[in-house]
Amino acid sequence: MSEFAELATQVMARCEILGTLSQNPNCLDRRYLSEQHRLANQLASGWMIEAGMTTWQDAVGNIWGHYTSTVPNAPRLILGSHLDTVPNGGKYDGMLGVVAAISMVAMFDGLQRKFPFHIDIVGFCDEEGTRFGTTLLGSRALTGNWQESWRHLKDENGMSLAEAMEQFGLHFDEVSSASISPTDILGYLELHIEQGPVLEQENLPVGVVSAIAGAKRFTITIEGVAGHAGTVPMSMRYDALAASAEMILAVERTSHQRPGVVATVGKIDNMPNGVNVISGRTLFSLDVRSEDDTLRDEALAEIMQQFGEIGAKRNVKLSVEQTHAAPAVQCDEDLKQALVRGVELSDIKPRILASGAGHDAMAMADICPVAMLFTRCKGGISHHPGESIKESDVEASLSVLFKSIENLQHA
Amino acid sequence: MSEFAELATQVMARCEILGTLSQNPNCLDRRYLSEQHRLANQLASGWMIEAGMTTWQDAVGNIWGHYTSTVPNAPRLILGSHLDTVPNGGKYDGMLGVVAAISMVAMFDGLQRKFPFHIDIVGFCDEEGTRFGTTLLGSRALTGNWQESWRHLKDENGMSLAEAMEQFGLHFDEVSSASISPTDILGYLELHIEQGPVLEQENLPVGVVSAIAGAKRFTITIEGVAGHAGTVPMSMRYDALAASAEMILAVERTSHQRPGVVATVGKIDNMPNGVNVISGRTLFSLDVRSEDDTLRDEALAEIMQQFGEIGAKRNVKLSVEQTHAAPAVQCDEDLKQALVRGVELSDIKPRILASGAGHDAMAMADICPVAMLFTRCKGGISHHPGESIKESDVEASLSVLFKSIENLQHA
Repeated sequence: MSEFAELATQVMARCEILGTLSQNPNCLDRRYLSEQHRLANQLASGWMIEAGMTTWQDAVGNIWGHYTSTVPNAPRLILGSHLDTVPNGGKYDGMLGVVAAISMVAMFDGLQRKFPFHIDIVGFCDEEGTRFGTTLLGSRALTGNWQESWRHLKDENGMSLAEAMEQFGLHFDEVSSASISPTDILGYLELHIEQGPVLEQENLPVGVVSAIAGAKRFTITIEGVAGHAGTVPMSMRYDALAASAEMILAVERTSHQRPGVVATVGKIDNMPNGVNVISGRTLFSLDVRSEDDTLRDEALAEIMQQFGEIGAKRNVKLSVEQTHAAPAVQCDEDLKQALVRGVELSDIKPRILASGAGHDAMAMADICPVAMLFTRCKGGISHHPGESIKESDVEASLSVLFKSIENLQHA
Repeated sequence: MSEFAELATQVMARCEILGTLSQNPNCLDRRYLSEQHRLANQLASGWMIEAGMTTWQDAVGNIWGHYTSTVPNAPRLILGSHLDTVPNGGKYDGMLGVVAAISMVAMFDGLQRKFPFHIDIVGFCDEEGTRFGTTLLGSRALTGNWQESWRHLKDENGMSLAEAMEQFGLHFDEVSSASISPTDILGYLELHIEQGPVLEQENLPVGVVSAIAGAKRFTITIEGVAGHAGTVPMSMRYDALAASAEMILAVERTSHQRPGVVATVGKIDNMPNGVNVISGRTLFSLDVRSEDDTLRDEALAEIMQQFGEIGAKRNVKLSVEQTHAAPAVQCDEDLKQALVRGVELSDIKPRILASGAGHDAMAMADICPVAMLFTRCKGGISHHPGESIKESDVEASLSVLFKSIENLQHA
């Protein structure tokens, strides 16, 4: 057992505790500006103080800890992740990164290790965007990308973001004071569960992230002609669902043929959706991602060409609406190499992989270099109560982070 | 203009009037045992009396008219269709067959034409099954196929069939008195709109039905593995929706290759149905019909084999649940030939076609020979307010019916 074993036990126990703070008694559900958000911040703050940090909650509701450098005018290295969850979520998504960083700083503090940079830990208040439908509220407040128009975003009970902030004790108009200066940030390092199956498949406890994939999303609408399932001969049909089926397979085939690209049709709504009615109208989603925007856009162009051909051949009307676009975010080469060295020093085979999911690091990349370390998770399952990680993998993750940060001071 | 032109105008006007009797002010919606059911029966009854018929409402709520034969112990020829509608339905589906039969008897009566058989007209009270979820309640009461278990069928307001009958002035326990003896029935002849596009495509006002297609219905469940749309590589996916898409195309392809069979996937439910989640579970319906049960079952076997292959290849779990099975009902050869002669005598090219939709004639076939005549409808549209027929096609339909019945007496 390494020197990180005890720390790993603490991290697992703290994730367990955070996993009990839920606004829903039947599942883990902790949303921005809820009473449980406040409690999670209080818990994290207590652990930060124990770790020798000073703490504060910023104007958007992120919780911060500061482990001071001995060097005057030192830059800040920010470690962190998010403390909010999706409804019926797991207890490691986000939390692991915050809790592990705190335990590691506690270890530095116990060893009386100081660095030529401050170590700040941030527990972001909203990454998932579950309550107000807009993601990364916490990190975007930091980076000055907060939008005035969000004032009127409503939660499912009709409460606006501005009202919810007031109720929590924050003020929408003061969020700008949460923004931080990019000039003195060494970088942002985020530990997060992989949320995918690659590390498990390759039997590796951790992986270093190359980039966070850029995504484009679309809603595709197919308009055919509804009809009676018994009376319209096959040759006279304009079946919107059958056309959609052919397009869904085209999406799958195209992305299979292009390594580095994933494309998914996850949502379909069919009308009138009757057992005995030929489909007249079908909407489906398309989500295409790659760590390489060019690769992604090439795949997309091929998919759209096939959609056009299928639509024309079947005489159905095709409409394409883009609903989301985010470019890929490349991780910083130096920070990434520091993590790779940390992996090697922990006697683990370095594996570089892209992140298909979005993370707070995406927003942070606007103001500083970012890097991420992934911890293996069981079956790639996330956003689900079945989310599970091994304590030994947490131990490995702590070892990598510790050694990477030690290396940073020599960089 | 033929001698049926005036009659056709009357039929169109009466369909228009029946089309105003709706339990919903925003659309045509006339369900079994509603106040509008009562009013429709009263209207039809009045028209029957005008046509020289005696009338009665039977124990299930069907309205009857009797045009008596001059011959002692004559058999009955039953003409009819249904007076109920689907929600947001059209004004010809069902009604045309009842109203046209009444106008035709009025013509016989005006001409003082009598036949060696009684002519009975029935306006069935429930063919669509909209209120209680079980179709053909009116005709199945006639044929003795009424089920004791239906007593507890509930409508959307929680009222049971037995309660609704009481409220209407009928008694569930007396329905058996609506059943009629098969021994003295010459046959059942039903005029109905095609509800499909074949006659329009071939530019024919009417068509003679060969058989009412038998249908089998299934619910197919595909279980894959849900996952994050960004983090699971294409090669590690078990996408239930993509598997379903491949199966939907197999259904379409197989039925295309087998003339006389139509197969439809009209309903799909996908889970969790999120833009950024790989589908973990998809259910879809399968409806396969043919006028030839053997053809239908051969197509079905081929479809199921392909489902099995696709499921195995993709490593997803496939479950098949049969939800409905009805054998095809062949129309009576003699009655059919009588209709064909009626078509020829009306200077129309005879076209024999199968009915893909179910009709009261399906139930009536249990107790007597049945035959059906289809009237062309615009775009094949039915079960929709856009349902539309031409007055000239009604004229043709009346001519065919009139001439066919005249011919029957010489048979």
